[in-house]
Amino acid sequence: MLLVQAPGGIPVLTKGDDVAALITPALAALVWPDGTTGLAAGDVVVISSKIVSKAEGRMVAARDREDAITSQTVREVARRERADGTVLRIVENPLGLVMAAAGVDASNTPPGTVLLLPEDPDASARRIRRGLHARFGVNPGVLVTDTSGRPWRRGVADIAIGAAGVLVLEDLRGGVDGYGRPLTATVMAAADEVAAAAELVKGKAAGLPVAVVRGVARLVTDDDGPGARSLIRTPEEDLFRHGAD
Amino acid sequence: MLLVQAPGGIPVLTKGDDVAALITPALAALVWPDGTTGLAAGDVVVISSKIVSKAEGRMVAARDREDAITSQTVREVARRERADGTVLRIVENPLGLVMAAAGVDASNTPPGTVLLLPEDPDASARRIRRGLHARFGVNPGVLVTDTSGRPWRRGVADIAIGAAGVLVLEDLRGGVDGYGRPLTATVMAAADEVAAAAELVKGKAAGLPVAVVRGVARLVTDDDGPGARSLIRTPEEDLFRHGAD
Repeated sequence: MLLVQAPGGIPVLTKGDDVAALITPALAALVWPDGTTGLAAGDVVVISSKIVSKAEGRMVAARDREDAITSQTVREVARRERADGTVLRIVENPLGLVMAAAGVDASNTPPGTVLLLPEDPDASARRIRRGLHARFGVNPGVLVTDTSGRPWRRGVADIAIGAAGVLVLEDLRGGVDGYGRPLTATVMAAADEVAAAAELVKGKAAGLPVAVVRGVARLVTDDDGPGARSLIRTPEEDLFRHGAD
Repeated sequence: MLLVQAPGGIPVLTKGDDVAALITPALAALVWPDGTTGLAAGDVVVISSKIVSKAEGRMVAARDREDAITSQTVREVARRERADGTVLRIVENPLGLVMAAAGVDASNTPPGTVLLLPEDPDASARRIRRGLHARFGVNPGVLVTDTSGRPWRRGVADIAIGAAGVLVLEDLRGGVDGYGRPLTATVMAAADEVAAAAELVKGKAAGLPVAVVRGVARLVTDDDGPGARSLIRTPEEDLFRHGAD
């Protein structure tokens, strides 16, 4: 069984805050159906990039929003002028993520400011993992997530942009199907699926930036692993964007 | 709290089978942490398209695989020749889905055959919903899911290709952030996130083609709604694939 909970009571974080320390009381207060509390081995702690960015001081003045987007643009994929004269840009940012406005965010930040993504979300995840390990005595997986659009389909969904101790790609190719034939083309984007599951309970408006996912211990590794950056496809291997941008 | 379970004991389905009837015993046997069993109001039943296709007789001879892909191709997005001389094609199929091999599947089918996607997965979902309602007395949401690649990111993830009674797009734009400003660009692809959460417990090799997701009753509607087809972006509105294909 998969269980996902988003604890209340996470404070608003500001520059210099220790994310692991400040989310620990809320995580410790979680009560699970079996009566246990807090974190257990094999849990994945999923954290919205927004609070990580705030703790890491990634806030910049909002009148520089377009400059901020430009500063985070490695490559422009598409642009469209809105009815109000502003421009929507889909760009690849320094993390290799293709996102609207480079992932620069203007919601849930103080008026007059915008928030950049963490500079190295995999490093953020590793740091938070160490902090949680020190406090709980178990070594959970940690994901840092953000919300992103995607081609061909309406709506946005959460994806993993930082990871520590999580098998971000679950390779089933060694397995066989019910008829004994090898499974093909089945490297699951497990970290993105965990991010999506967590989003269903975290919610944007509800002030619940953290969720704990229990029941995917098979994805939690002792070492920190290569992180979410390994989810980025190189243009060469990306047939789906062939000729795309 | 979000809870996801995949019941064992689902039989192998063949042409003409009633999906709702044949998954009912397994669903009825589910035991939840609160001691209740079976389905409850607000649950979402997530079903791999593969068993729906089998019940709907969508199996064709495997020596016609390339013909089958061609028959399911509205538009070719990309192609690449593999080392073994076969060709991988990314195409848009009649459902509007952009998928490798048009979604034509050769795993978990008898040797010598391939499986096409359901002809109208939204209709399949509605039919299954009616059947589950008749048997359980509650009206769960139903999703029919498949596994798909995506541009820019490695790995595949499950998405909703059929839906009945599920708010496939959760529009948060009426909401406000923690500073009272309107949330922007936040129409969540909720059905795809539920599909992803379900995939984490269903698994391909394990013979668990059905999962029940509890805890997202806000997404379950009385009427069947517009279905998963409403998740398809038209080329005109799809800035992400601007110039892409």
